[in-house]
Amino acid sequence: MAEQFSMQPIGFVESCFGEKFATPRQSGIVSSARGRVVFTPEVDPEACRGLEEFSHLWLVFVFDQVPEDDVRWLVRPPRLGGNEKKGVFATRSPYRPNRIGLSLVKLEKVTPEGVEVSGLDLVDGTPILDLKPYLPYVESRPEAIGGFAEKSPEKLPVIFPEDLKNDLSSEEINLITETLAIDPRPAYHRDPEREYGCLLAGRNIKWRAGEDGITILKIT
Amino acid sequence: MAEQFSMQPIGFVESCFGEKFATPRQSGIVSSARGRVVFTPEVDPEACRGLEEFSHLWLVFVFDQVPEDDVRWLVRPPRLGGNEKKGVFATRSPYRPNRIGLSLVKLEKVTPEGVEVSGLDLVDGTPILDLKPYLPYVESRPEAIGGFAEKSPEKLPVIFPEDLKNDLSSEEINLITETLAIDPRPAYHRDPEREYGCLLAGRNIKWRAGEDGITILKIT
Repeated sequence: MAEQFSMQPIGFVESCFGEKFATPRQSGIVSSARGRVVFTPEVDPEACRGLEEFSHLWLVFVFDQVPEDDVRWLVRPPRLGGNEKKGVFATRSPYRPNRIGLSLVKLEKVTPEGVEVSGLDLVDGTPILDLKPYLPYVESRPEAIGGFAEKSPEKLPVIFPEDLKNDLSSEEINLITETLAIDPRPAYHRDPEREYGCLLAGRNIKWRAGEDGITILKIT
Repeated sequence: MAEQFSMQPIGFVESCFGEKFATPRQSGIVSSARGRVVFTPEVDPEACRGLEEFSHLWLVFVFDQVPEDDVRWLVRPPRLGGNEKKGVFATRSPYRPNRIGLSLVKLEKVTPEGVEVSGLDLVDGTPILDLKPYLPYVESRPEAIGGFAEKSPEKLPVIFPEDLKNDLSSEEINLITETLAIDPRPAYHRDPEREYGCLLAGRNIKWRAGEDGITILKIT
């Protein structure tokens, strides 16, 4: 049995996504998804000196919304409609050994309270293990071949009734629209009558997915 | 005190770099640097099914060549000549909390013995915590701003005497040339008389760095 390494969070995410359901499956897809990394008291504030020189950051995090012992060597990626099995190391599934995730986010602002980012795909409260600058000369490889996940997910039209927009800021309207446009339903759900609910920006959003796209029903 | 997470290596790297000194500081810079991720017996071989559809991989690893308790909140990046301090989260320094590293490598081949890669920047024996496909539609951001590490490091001329090439394959000659061209010396070393030695591809390479570049002196 190989040596174990003990990791302790350097911080936690404050995110507009209140639960796993409807949280985007990759970073950068919902550009209006904002959040903040708030450090633990052990972290010296000097640790971020110079960070603002970079436009993008890596968040190394723990997929704490899945159980530690639920490792699946074969998984069914949603991008393949849930019909095909791939090895977990060929996917970004959370059901992996060590449950480490990787998110590339845009740096918005470094403040004394934390690091503000956008393009987030993490649930509120996600533990952060590390934060690193994105190095485009090393990590931007437009020529790379992306296998079964070659392109951005398709976006569906979102029907957002005007009267439901009344209490919302334009940022909140964008966030809800962008998040629902990528169709958060599990791959095997295709019932146009079914009503879904998700927590976004502290609000409960009810919606349905039919042939003409996503229709928002209620916001509370 | 926040919850701790226990991580166990899924494998270890077999690398052409025998020690920390002269191992490239970033991946992809020495394209002839080959290696292999060999999995622990706990890993189901099915975990790599479909991996060969991707051209590039992330290796999430542990910087096990630095002591666990040597966290430095401020570091002196070699790219800045060792004169300027940056916060550790604004650098890719190994002296960081949780000692997690991130390497983007080219996938060469998936075999029953492991995953062969190139463009490696890891020391032989480095513990691997995770392996993920590179998703160009998410992770290739040519427009990103790379702060103080905007460009590839400069390459120096390498003087490689013909008689020292006798016992070497062309791959080994490329590896030694590419590795020394990026000048592995610590930022504060500038003595043209000083002789350096490093372990590359199982050989001990002696060299010197002067005004006209790197001169290889001896290979044993």
